[in-house]
Amino acid sequence: MSEGHTDISTLGEFGLIDRLTQNNETRHASTILSIGDDAAVIDHFGRQTVISTDMLVEGIHFDLAYTPLKHLGYKAVVVNLSDIYAMNATPTQITVGLAMSNRFSVEAIDELYEGIYAACERYNVDLVGGDTCSAPKGLTISITAIGEVAPGKFVTRSGAQLNDLVCVSGDLGAAYVGLQLLEREKRIFSENPSIQPDLQNNVYTIGRILKPEPRADIINWLEKNEIVPTSMIDVSDGLSSELLHISNKSGVGCVVYEDKIPIHTETKQTALEFNIAPTTCALNGGEDYELLFTVNQSAYEKLVLSEQISIIGYITEANKGVVLTTKSGNNHKLTAQGWTAFS
Amino acid sequence: MSEGHTDISTLGEFGLIDRLTQNNETRHASTILSIGDDAAVIDHFGRQTVISTDMLVEGIHFDLAYTPLKHLGYKAVVVNLSDIYAMNATPTQITVGLAMSNRFSVEAIDELYEGIYAACERYNVDLVGGDTCSAPKGLTISITAIGEVAPGKFVTRSGAQLNDLVCVSGDLGAAYVGLQLLEREKRIFSENPSIQPDLQNNVYTIGRILKPEPRADIINWLEKNEIVPTSMIDVSDGLSSELLHISNKSGVGCVVYEDKIPIHTETKQTALEFNIAPTTCALNGGEDYELLFTVNQSAYEKLVLSEQISIIGYITEANKGVVLTTKSGNNHKLTAQGWTAFS
Repeated sequence: MSEGHTDISTLGEFGLIDRLTQNNETRHASTILSIGDDAAVIDHFGRQTVISTDMLVEGIHFDLAYTPLKHLGYKAVVVNLSDIYAMNATPTQITVGLAMSNRFSVEAIDELYEGIYAACERYNVDLVGGDTCSAPKGLTISITAIGEVAPGKFVTRSGAQLNDLVCVSGDLGAAYVGLQLLEREKRIFSENPSIQPDLQNNVYTIGRILKPEPRADIINWLEKNEIVPTSMIDVSDGLSSELLHISNKSGVGCVVYEDKIPIHTETKQTALEFNIAPTTCALNGGEDYELLFTVNQSAYEKLVLSEQISIIGYITEANKGVVLTTKSGNNHKLTAQGWTAFS
Repeated sequence: MSEGHTDISTLGEFGLIDRLTQNNETRHASTILSIGDDAAVIDHFGRQTVISTDMLVEGIHFDLAYTPLKHLGYKAVVVNLSDIYAMNATPTQITVGLAMSNRFSVEAIDELYEGIYAACERYNVDLVGGDTCSAPKGLTISITAIGEVAPGKFVTRSGAQLNDLVCVSGDLGAAYVGLQLLEREKRIFSENPSIQPDLQNNVYTIGRILKPEPRADIINWLEKNEIVPTSMIDVSDGLSSELLHISNKSGVGCVVYEDKIPIHTETKQTALEFNIAPTTCALNGGEDYELLFTVNQSAYEKLVLSEQISIIGYITEANKGVVLTTKSGNNHKLTAQGWTAFS
């Protein structure tokens, strides 16, 4: 919660930047020069640089009616780090661009940055630059994440091979269900502000939409177990969309089994309350920030030891397409629009 | 001009990205992996990476009433490249983030990208990634520029030394005057749409606001002449603000002479038409994207041979502050708000 409302104009752009960056720490030797100049300087000492940019727009990607600014700052960072991990790389620096209307106070931006710094600390990255400017309306956050990887060790979307195992970390669909809950509470509250939300039974799914975590642990586990995925992508738009990306880029097809798709019990229960098939949430929901990857079958013995990784299918020839085998044994082709035939 | 109005929704996000990037060329060996994955991969082969982010927001940084989209795309790139040059580095890659409302057609975004690609070609940089998303309103462009520099050869704002010469490239104040002209024509047009603008005598100043060029040539000239500036910054907020940045960061003061500040004849004439002192345009106008830098006095003989560089003053002790000596010999302290006492 904001403790006051100080107009940003009282600080000015440079005053605001000073305030936001006064406690900024540098964690990496690779950060040669950080905030405060025309640009930052990074030396990855012979490692390759990985770079990714994402924008979050108020009214499209987030709703401040139910998104605390601290969570928003945190999430804005981690969704970018997720892209870096999905390259099998380690994030090291970020830059933050912020365009905001004058409805945002200094205290509000402080909160947003609290979340940004919390994510930087948790995932050991340096905030090295950015841009802070005004906008006629709303809040837009643009984050660029930089990472490093040993030369040639990055993993793309295009290396999946015939008969590879298709694996996914954690569980899917929870963020989508969490979002439905928050939207429902917003409607109820706007109709009757005296009703307090009761979301005690939905802590997991709401946590997944408000405070996702990128799967740094999976990248570490794979490295420790000397498993190099043949392809990898993070699940931001839903399993269906990501399977299609890997298949298209790799020039292959795949089969995934509905009963192998990992879905949390709370996700299942809540999805059914909303009359949505849990599988649909996993396939089309998105915002899970899990890792979807393919590995050679020789890694099977190691993979089954991880409780955080599910083997959900295998890679086929391209002409087979991207197929879901349902619990009842039917085969459905998954399309770019996702798979909605279930419900 | 747009040749039609195709709704972006007809292409979808991935279709739009495919369309925009189908002719994208890779110019640098350092671009190991470009658009089409979770992130791009860059290998600067032992050189250091320089990185800078800028946002351009409709209604704040640009007005589409008088800014052709192609020019906007070009400018969005070059203002970022300017930051990289200001580090004494060479830009090599950019990522482009775009948030836009559905009022923008596919053809409009094509035009914007034409300008982005034109700038990439002219300045030999690769477009390696980005994000394209919708916004409830307006257009926001976020560009991150990446560059490279030999280890330790970057130039910051903080190295100015006592008695160094203060130099600036090109001329100042023109972009500000150009903006006043465009704003005036917009007012006239909105009052009487039948009046055609006559801007034939203002080609230079209007060109400076609509299509600025970063000073790659100055960086090359300095290198060829073996001059390494002690500090450098690009002039985006006005000479006054940039002098204060260098002085504050370097812990020095400086004196600049009003009669040495380079101002184009057209800028002077137009400024006087608007009843603004040309010097005020140079000090407070901004958007010139010239380079302001300090060099040791030993470089004087070489510097005077460049027609593109003006020596405008010298570095003093910190307690002297940042001072303008006017044509009439008076000394004025420049402040963060700029110097407006003249008019």
